[in-house]
Amino acid sequence: MTNEVNPGNTGDLRADSLYYHEFPIPGKLSIEVSKPAATQRDLVLAYSPGVAEPVREIAADPENAYRYTMKGNLVAVISNGTAILGLGNLGALASKPVMEGKALLFKKFADIDAIDIEVSSEDIETVISTVANIAVSFGGINLEDIAAPACFEIENRLKAMLDIPVFHDDQHGTAIIVAAGLVNSLKISGKKLSDVRIVLVGAGAAGTASLRLLLTLGADKSKLLVVDRVGVLHTGMTDLPPHHAFFAADTDARTLADACVGADVFIGTSAPNLLTPEMLASMAADPVVFAMANPDPEITPELAKATRDDVIIATGRSDYPNQVNNVLCFPYLFRGALDARAKAITDEMKMAAVHAIAALAHEPVPDEVLRAYNLTELSFGREYILPKLTDPRLKERVGSAVYQAAKAGA
Amino acid sequence: MTNEVNPGNTGDLRADSLYYHEFPIPGKLSIEVSKPAATQRDLVLAYSPGVAEPVREIAADPENAYRYTMKGNLVAVISNGTAILGLGNLGALASKPVMEGKALLFKKFADIDAIDIEVSSEDIETVISTVANIAVSFGGINLEDIAAPACFEIENRLKAMLDIPVFHDDQHGTAIIVAAGLVNSLKISGKKLSDVRIVLVGAGAAGTASLRLLLTLGADKSKLLVVDRVGVLHTGMTDLPPHHAFFAADTDARTLADACVGADVFIGTSAPNLLTPEMLASMAADPVVFAMANPDPEITPELAKATRDDVIIATGRSDYPNQVNNVLCFPYLFRGALDARAKAITDEMKMAAVHAIAALAHEPVPDEVLRAYNLTELSFGREYILPKLTDPRLKERVGSAVYQAAKAGA
Repeated sequence: MTNEVNPGNTGDLRADSLYYHEFPIPGKLSIEVSKPAATQRDLVLAYSPGVAEPVREIAADPENAYRYTMKGNLVAVISNGTAILGLGNLGALASKPVMEGKALLFKKFADIDAIDIEVSSEDIETVISTVANIAVSFGGINLEDIAAPACFEIENRLKAMLDIPVFHDDQHGTAIIVAAGLVNSLKISGKKLSDVRIVLVGAGAAGTASLRLLLTLGADKSKLLVVDRVGVLHTGMTDLPPHHAFFAADTDARTLADACVGADVFIGTSAPNLLTPEMLASMAADPVVFAMANPDPEITPELAKATRDDVIIATGRSDYPNQVNNVLCFPYLFRGALDARAKAITDEMKMAAVHAIAALAHEPVPDEVLRAYNLTELSFGREYILPKLTDPRLKERVGSAVYQAAKAGA
Repeated sequence: MTNEVNPGNTGDLRADSLYYHEFPIPGKLSIEVSKPAATQRDLVLAYSPGVAEPVREIAADPENAYRYTMKGNLVAVISNGTAILGLGNLGALASKPVMEGKALLFKKFADIDAIDIEVSSEDIETVISTVANIAVSFGGINLEDIAAPACFEIENRLKAMLDIPVFHDDQHGTAIIVAAGLVNSLKISGKKLSDVRIVLVGAGAAGTASLRLLLTLGADKSKLLVVDRVGVLHTGMTDLPPHHAFFAADTDARTLADACVGADVFIGTSAPNLLTPEMLASMAADPVVFAMANPDPEITPELAKATRDDVIIATGRSDYPNQVNNVLCFPYLFRGALDARAKAITDEMKMAAVHAIAALAHEPVPDEVLRAYNLTELSFGREYILPKLTDPRLKERVGSAVYQAAKAGA
């Protein structure tokens, strides 16, 4: 026995992460040859002169790109680095480890080939034209870590221009998980989505997309209150940007505390500790709290439960129950979309994902999942409103549901 | 035993190539995870929250992208499909099988991760800005199958804009192999490069780049004649495009036949059978013929040798000796450039590749190479002026030579 510390496994997050990224080779992805390439004949088929045959077939019919190239299983993970994790605008290059990580998750969870492309521009038109010009290379585009409000126009314009799925995961991935968790929470509290009063704090990409998806699912717009740095967004405010003006409410509430009184649902995509015990205490019975600020939530589960025992709380963290994590959705959503050769991610496909994710939490949990989380038992309830990230059934369940919805809409 | 034909191995090039590209999965590449990704701890390091550490390091110093991401070993293979193989302008998407094939060759021969990016535009400014906007993602850029004259401006402008190697292989890859072959041919004929008269037929990207590299290596510009569709490019011609005007000669020669009289070297990047026996017969002693039209050369080796036995002939074909094939160079050129962290591919690096490739043909051939080509013996001479494609020494020899040249120039 020696006293050597295993490099890369010191327990220190910073040291271990840097080691992980650097050794034995830099980065987290490699590009490999998926076909035989050993013999002269192999190379004649793979390159010259054989490659002329698929070229001619694709020139004759672009759909043949899905038969003869990797396009159909290839997703570009695209960022300009303007909103990297919780770190802010650090530029395109600095986002590369995150985007490689996203590609890693695509592969691990849904066997999708994904490559990161960083776009070094903050100009909306430049980002749009650059992505549009290279889009033909890919079967789908996952936008990531692009700051609001630019992200809205970039995604909407690209969706309108392109005939492959374009999906800004920070918006819609989060929205789908929040919606799935809320559907299940309301089953526990016995409330209807159309009846509940919802407060959102942090009117950025993830928050506003969550509300929009909840509206699609049946929430009542007159029961929404959105709180941003300026307070409750209300109809008396002028000069709100479009993505805020849409949510301006006819209300006397002006502060977060005002908004929380009697609210059924709190959705936080803002900053640590914004939801005080007093505010939580003022909410309606069986309040649902999505406290997703990272790494420290708007209220900790400990404090929330100490404040009232009828609370249902979810966070972004892996060390509490009910983790809101986009990896529950995006790999499988793209799996279904690619398999269906969908030309876009529709509301119906998102809703199919919501219901498939929500439904899975009602089923018995496989032993392998229990073991991975050191649990002996787990069943639907306040501590289990969302499936666990490593649930192996997600791929088939969510992927199939999205595939069916895509086919039904095609 | 059955009479089944093995699908994909029927002997029919078209059928086998389409089968190869389609089954068992479409395309020729996959993107794989190169780091552990099984445990919760792995994902904490690879993605959230651990990935924030390399992000911060890169934001602090962009050079750290080479430590913590795959950038340093990642080459983008970029085309707009305007000059696909010998097939012409079939569009960006149709070029994808070729570009995937190029990426396959990068991996197989030099362990470089390469991904194809197709750019759907024929506009020079659009191609330049698109590539420049995504270049930060990569350690190098290989331009491919972009038509002349657009390819010249696209490459030159990108080289000036970017701090990573940019290399249009159709131009310079071909040029390097031609130069290596010519260096060796002149050793056989006992002539000096500065003395030889050179005729080029086909003044496109590959041909003109070959002449430019030969000038860099010491060829005499007054001894060059370039023949295009309009005949010999001469100083009496007005309105020649810049890449042709540069080669306009002060000469009375007007036709290819005129140009060939007394010439020492014929370089063909044109069309089948353009070099007649009469023209070849009119050339100087020990004429060198690079007949690179594909699939049918400007003159077949059989006809050339039947015409005169002092000819030294190379073609683009694998079924004759002396194959001029870019795979002899580009994987290793990029290997050396990436390893040296070169900011550009310089003339010195190209010349280092020329001499390393040429030198290898003077060494004894390994048994494994002889076996691969069903040969019992092979030594430097008229039938062996260029190393064989599968020579395993190329990676180290050419890669090291380019690396040294890059370091010497840095």
